[in-house]
Amino acid sequence: MTVRRLAVVGTGLMGASVGLAAKRAGVVHVAGFDADREALAAALGRDALDVAARGLADAVEGADLVVVATPVRTISKVVTAVSGVAREGCTITDVGSTKGRICAELADGRNFVGGHPLCGSEAAGPEAARGDLFDGATWFVTPLPNGDATHGEVVAAFAGALGASPLEIEPETHDRFVALVSHLPHALANALVTQAGSAQFEGLAPMAQSGASFQDMTRIAGANPRVWTDIFLENRELLAAALGEYRGRIEELEEALRADDADAVSRSIEDAAAYRSRLSPHEGDGRSGP
Amino acid sequence: MTVRRLAVVGTGLMGASVGLAAKRAGVVHVAGFDADREALAAALGRDALDVAARGLADAVEGADLVVVATPVRTISKVVTAVSGVAREGCTITDVGSTKGRICAELADGRNFVGGHPLCGSEAAGPEAARGDLFDGATWFVTPLPNGDATHGEVVAAFAGALGASPLEIEPETHDRFVALVSHLPHALANALVTQAGSAQFEGLAPMAQSGASFQDMTRIAGANPRVWTDIFLENRELLAAALGEYRGRIEELEEALRADDADAVSRSIEDAAAYRSRLSPHEGDGRSGP
Repeated sequence: MTVRRLAVVGTGLMGASVGLAAKRAGVVHVAGFDADREALAAALGRDALDVAARGLADAVEGADLVVVATPVRTISKVVTAVSGVAREGCTITDVGSTKGRICAELADGRNFVGGHPLCGSEAAGPEAARGDLFDGATWFVTPLPNGDATHGEVVAAFAGALGASPLEIEPETHDRFVALVSHLPHALANALVTQAGSAQFEGLAPMAQSGASFQDMTRIAGANPRVWTDIFLENRELLAAALGEYRGRIEELEEALRADDADAVSRSIEDAAAYRSRLSPHEGDGRSGP
Repeated sequence: MTVRRLAVVGTGLMGASVGLAAKRAGVVHVAGFDADREALAAALGRDALDVAARGLADAVEGADLVVVATPVRTISKVVTAVSGVAREGCTITDVGSTKGRICAELADGRNFVGGHPLCGSEAAGPEAARGDLFDGATWFVTPLPNGDATHGEVVAAFAGALGASPLEIEPETHDRFVALVSHLPHALANALVTQAGSAQFEGLAPMAQSGASFQDMTRIAGANPRVWTDIFLENRELLAAALGEYRGRIEELEEALRADDADAVSRSIEDAAAYRSRLSPHEGDGRSGP
């Protein structure tokens, strides 16, 4: 990996984890900046940074790679600010959960490459950072059409060095994919836990007295409201479309149930079984059940 | 525990697991019957039974407790048949996933007590049976209004001896509860995996390249189509109602997203966070994320 000097802008969970994973991977020097002085100090305290800088320019100075890990709606503004102070040839990337708007707004920034490691934690802040957070995760990389290919290679190699599997993808495909496999599941878990929580069952506790299925289906519910509000809104059109399609599937099952239509009910489960085994042919941990 | 001689009718996953757990708990003699000779032989081969009987009457003879573990739609018929051949004073219970109709149909059977251990496996058949399947599970017990209280006590003590936590509940409350915490989650997982599986993403594999959230939310998808078709249909009115309510919640979020209504989106996540922490105040395994 060619990155010797790294700067992390935004030292919350993701930024501080990037710092820890980079140190683990042998990056020589990690500088960090966060407008939130407490988050910055905490990242330094976790040894996620070698240097906590008082300003953006100080953090970015001399860096081979700058990783912007601020909330998704601020990223293109922060990247533009970084571009103004970074050295010639520096690669700039981000770890935001959506890519379409960010890459469109930064289409002229020749040293920017979008990035998104698909992992996280229900905990927030640098205190929850982990150097192994990216191990085995897919790290999406979205180079700009007019950008220098070298920058994409730097980001992909960096993602690999941090334990992730880099995967190049178009920003629009990325956003549609994460709407389906990340944002939709989070929205579904939220709705399920809210429905169960607001139901009245005297003497029964839905979480304690339910099976593994309910617990699995609600584990991610309510994660990081501030972060996820931004993510949902940033990807709101594609997420709304995914929710609309999902709602149609639910309604179909309702109709089959109300009609006592055994064939249709059976088909809906068999379809799911077929898709599931196709999606993960080698998986199966033996757990499950009602 | 007062059960010395146990009979299991239906020796699939649940029945054979009851046998294994009962042997583990020190039950002296476990007899089994299944109309499917292969399932019966397999349960015997797994040492879930001491005796595999050629007929229902042979299996049930002399039993203190008979556990009916046949598909949910056959249970009341099988219980009635067992009643005709069981000794005086024998307790009869079942492990079916719904209780309302079964308990209504058996309202006159004074030695019957409904039961439902809330656990299972995505695998099916006696080959997948486990003696620890019930450890820590809630085992719902639904005594009949006119029944002898002794039978309820026998079933509750048996459930406890098998490692589960017995919980007495009204059949209707039970069915509404499992519609919400078991049947609804299964239906949601099915719809999600079908939606992801039928989406087109060139070069992307939703299961392999998604985060833990998607994998958690689809783990139970497509489990045992035959068993779950029966369960869904048996509880179809309450499940359809739960799905309808859920669909309304999804539509609300869609509307908030389309309106770019940050307050409403944020509130939906914060509500989920509050309900989740209320539902499981001590949980939190640190995993999660996008």
